[in-house]
Amino acid sequence: VSTRAGIVVTGTEVLTGRVADRNGPWLAEQLRLVGVDIAEVIVVGDRPADLLAALTHLADRPVDLIITSGGLGPTADDLTARVVGDFHQRPSALDPELERRIAAIVERLQRGRGWRLDPEATAAGVRKQALVPAGATVLEPVGTAPGLVVPPPDDVRRPDGSAGPPVVVLPGPPRELQNMWPAAVAAPPVAAVIEQARELRQNTLRLWGTMESDLAAMMREQGAALDDLEITTCLREGELEIVTRYGPDRQADYDRFAAAVADRFPDTLFSADGATIDEIVAGLLRAQSLTIATAESCTAGLLAGRLTELAGSSDYVLGGLVVYSNQAKHDLAGVPTELIERVGAVSEEVAVALADGARDRLGADIGVGITGIAGPGGGSAEKPVGLVHFCVSDGTHRRPARWVIPGGRSEVRGRAVLLALQLVRRLLQERR
Amino acid sequence: VSTRAGIVVTGTEVLTGRVADRNGPWLAEQLRLVGVDIAEVIVVGDRPADLLAALTHLADRPVDLIITSGGLGPTADDLTARVVGDFHQRPSALDPELERRIAAIVERLQRGRGWRLDPEATAAGVRKQALVPAGATVLEPVGTAPGLVVPPPDDVRRPDGSAGPPVVVLPGPPRELQNMWPAAVAAPPVAAVIEQARELRQNTLRLWGTMESDLAAMMREQGAALDDLEITTCLREGELEIVTRYGPDRQADYDRFAAAVADRFPDTLFSADGATIDEIVAGLLRAQSLTIATAESCTAGLLAGRLTELAGSSDYVLGGLVVYSNQAKHDLAGVPTELIERVGAVSEEVAVALADGARDRLGADIGVGITGIAGPGGGSAEKPVGLVHFCVSDGTHRRPARWVIPGGRSEVRGRAVLLALQLVRRLLQERR
Repeated sequence: VSTRAGIVVTGTEVLTGRVADRNGPWLAEQLRLVGVDIAEVIVVGDRPADLLAALTHLADRPVDLIITSGGLGPTADDLTARVVGDFHQRPSALDPELERRIAAIVERLQRGRGWRLDPEATAAGVRKQALVPAGATVLEPVGTAPGLVVPPPDDVRRPDGSAGPPVVVLPGPPRELQNMWPAAVAAPPVAAVIEQARELRQNTLRLWGTMESDLAAMMREQGAALDDLEITTCLREGELEIVTRYGPDRQADYDRFAAAVADRFPDTLFSADGATIDEIVAGLLRAQSLTIATAESCTAGLLAGRLTELAGSSDYVLGGLVVYSNQAKHDLAGVPTELIERVGAVSEEVAVALADGARDRLGADIGVGITGIAGPGGGSAEKPVGLVHFCVSDGTHRRPARWVIPGGRSEVRGRAVLLALQLVRRLLQERR
Repeated sequence: VSTRAGIVVTGTEVLTGRVADRNGPWLAEQLRLVGVDIAEVIVVGDRPADLLAALTHLADRPVDLIITSGGLGPTADDLTARVVGDFHQRPSALDPELERRIAAIVERLQRGRGWRLDPEATAAGVRKQALVPAGATVLEPVGTAPGLVVPPPDDVRRPDGSAGPPVVVLPGPPRELQNMWPAAVAAPPVAAVIEQARELRQNTLRLWGTMESDLAAMMREQGAALDDLEITTCLREGELEIVTRYGPDRQADYDRFAAAVADRFPDTLFSADGATIDEIVAGLLRAQSLTIATAESCTAGLLAGRLTELAGSSDYVLGGLVVYSNQAKHDLAGVPTELIERVGAVSEEVAVALADGARDRLGADIGVGITGIAGPGGGSAEKPVGLVHFCVSDGTHRRPARWVIPGGRSEVRGRAVLLALQLVRRLLQERR
């Protein structure tokens, strides 16, 4: 049986969908690294009854560890610490030393930022943040809010004989939560849970051009050989991603599975070690000491933005041209106006001219051209919304490609960027 | 007391943080539009015991409506329909008419995509998807999976005398879920819940340059006048967003609050009607019949990509220059090499030259230049990581600006794009 944790994310902004939760996914990955599985992620608003019900529910599942994020601010509606303390029957009391440390942080912040805050309200906020449930471990503030590790009640046993899960109380801002995590893991009640967890390995395979149904058929053939592997597959942004989790004693099973995938889908398996397409393209450019430049119409800079996401990308990205108007296609990338008039801006010929123009104008080894109809307007029977022409060129080889991408404007643009990266990868691998 | 719904999102990819949940936020907003509040969003993996526990927990909260997403596929590990049926004590049985309709869809899909699937496995999958809990309403498939509305048990009363919440069972793919939603809302058990919900209005104010603490102080002064408004504030990407929800009888309270915010923060309130900065910039460019072009170094095309997110942006976006290397700054944007050598690529002078270069090379009315140090490398004591110089120019007015943006590489680049949009807005509003 695996060691499982439950996560409670508090915050009306997250609950109502206005802000995407970044803490749940981050915590899930950190927990996996120490062998702890996630049972549930629960998002609740800033209502104490809802938070208490979520804690009760998770403790009943049962889970071995509960982690909360958010609700540690200085104002009265930030109630996580008190609710968690009450939940584990640990009354909160002021920690005067902690109060002094928080006050010093707040004062430094105010001075640094030139804030003038009401001293009485500030002191009340500091006092509230320095309330600590009896027996809890304080995690030193990264911002102004301290975190907590609240152990289960000392003298209450659950029906299964256990004491119940400790609760780790972390602040909502991702930077604060992440920086506080090492201290949380080191706190004795949490360390004790993690010690019992067995190592959980995770490997990722990525395929491009294989359908989920073909993979499913291949996995059915493998049958019982996969019984001890936890395999999840998902199609995202056109890539088929296979994530497998397993205990160390199942490494041989996994190795056989990974070899079987490589054997069946040799042309579409592009990442066997978890590397992303971005990392693979960057590695190929570096290994071949090549530079790259773009000329983008419908994606309008998103490919250049993506190529420069990785630190150090200035080693191989020179720049690009965003040629949204036809005039810009001519003026910046040198696409002949006559060509655009004859075959249209969304055409293989213009994609090729853009790739060459990008190489030429930036003095790059590799040029990428993209031109398409992102929609919702501008489509026709012959050239529908979603039609995108690509070309990747190294001067010698020109690789044009054409896709009709389904979905709305943002899907078409986002998928086009991914397809361009795959086309760059293919050309670079052919050159080797 | 408000009408409340609980959402259960199923899927190991979402639970482990590999895929962001898009259904919870979308459903939350749809429910708000019909006056239903969200109590909780629970994410569980593909384990029937976890799903059942989540349903039980929500029904006990209690909530008036439960919505599930995911787990309706043809394979055996997609178990949502059966678990929900069991939960409401409604045994599932094959609906032969539905089976025929699904089979027809699958056959059409296979023909269209040229798939060759094992007929027996396909038939088993179709049969599984055509199992319907007794008394449930079938929501016709948008993909291949039908949705369900499963009413509470007929003859079981809960301690509070109610029958318990109906469960709406929707597929996981966002497009399928969204297209099925109107049918779900129209199903009698759901319509009955919504009928009892009171209208909930929502308005959004956006400020740029006001601190959360100043807003909090202003709200404290308002005191009891805000008691019947549900106000949540959040700082995101440097904008302070105030979302207020209220019943129609509190419209006057809201109007007074909105007027008070406008009165106190006249210079920083940039959106009083929910419009985003993107929409405001687009509207200003259209209203003044102006075109825009960019020259980006550290953001490397992300601003151009952002400006073209809105449909119809080709009316005012001409294009841009991605000038990642210093050579490109010179060759594409005409920044003098001597200037770069003298003051450095990250400087006010180069930002101004980039803005002018963008205007000039693209023939645009407005030019935007961005140059900065996205990190993690490249910083110095004088020019730290996060330093970004901007300039917005209309040829007559040149508005340089400088920020040191905290956070990692992606935060610096993302925030720089937002800051540039705000600077464009300010210049355009000054011109009016």
